[in-house]
Amino acid sequence: MDRLVHPDLKDVSLAAALHALADPVRLDIVAKLVECPCLNASTACAQGTPKSTISNHLNVLRAAGLIETSVEGRERINRLRCTDFDARFPGLLATVLANKA
Amino acid sequence: MDRLVHPDLKDVSLAAALHALADPVRLDIVAKLVECPCLNASTACAQGTPKSTISNHLNVLRAAGLIETSVEGRERINRLRCTDFDARFPGLLATVLANKA
Repeated sequence: MDRLVHPDLKDVSLAAALHALADPVRLDIVAKLVECPCLNASTACAQGTPKSTISNHLNVLRAAGLIETSVEGRERINRLRCTDFDARFPGLLATVLANKA
Repeated sequence: MDRLVHPDLKDVSLAAALHALADPVRLDIVAKLVECPCLNASTACAQGTPKSTISNHLNVLRAAGLIETSVEGRERINRLRCTDFDARFPGLLATVLANKA
């Protein structure tokens, strides 16, 4: 299992944060994580989505400081880093999610 | 001179809008347009930026409904579509620009 890297939010640029959110599948994952605070890879995306695709999307979200992933038993559990992300980019996540509706 | 297409904002997805903003050069162009309401291609980007690069960035911004371009004499003048964009994505542009500072 590769090492999970969680950046310090001060090292995440605004462009990188927007890029992470600029994809409908990743927007769906983030919106799901607001509703349901923990998701494993198989519940993060629509059924039938290839594992490698889900993994890539989660990697992009993790690299932008939007999610943290922890290994719990045999699973990787993903959670939003709401507080960290909002401290770095005030109001951005809330505004994006409000516009997704 | 190719035809300038300005989309109806209802046809612009949130992902497309975020993608247009998810680039430091395009963010700079948008921020400049807030300060200075009209820019031609040569003043939109840092000196020395290739014309084709500037043109590509302006095309992405135009396709996302962020700018309108009009032909005035021998120049193309770019303006922000603040009102249209804000009606479609309330608060998004202001939040992004506040986070750029």
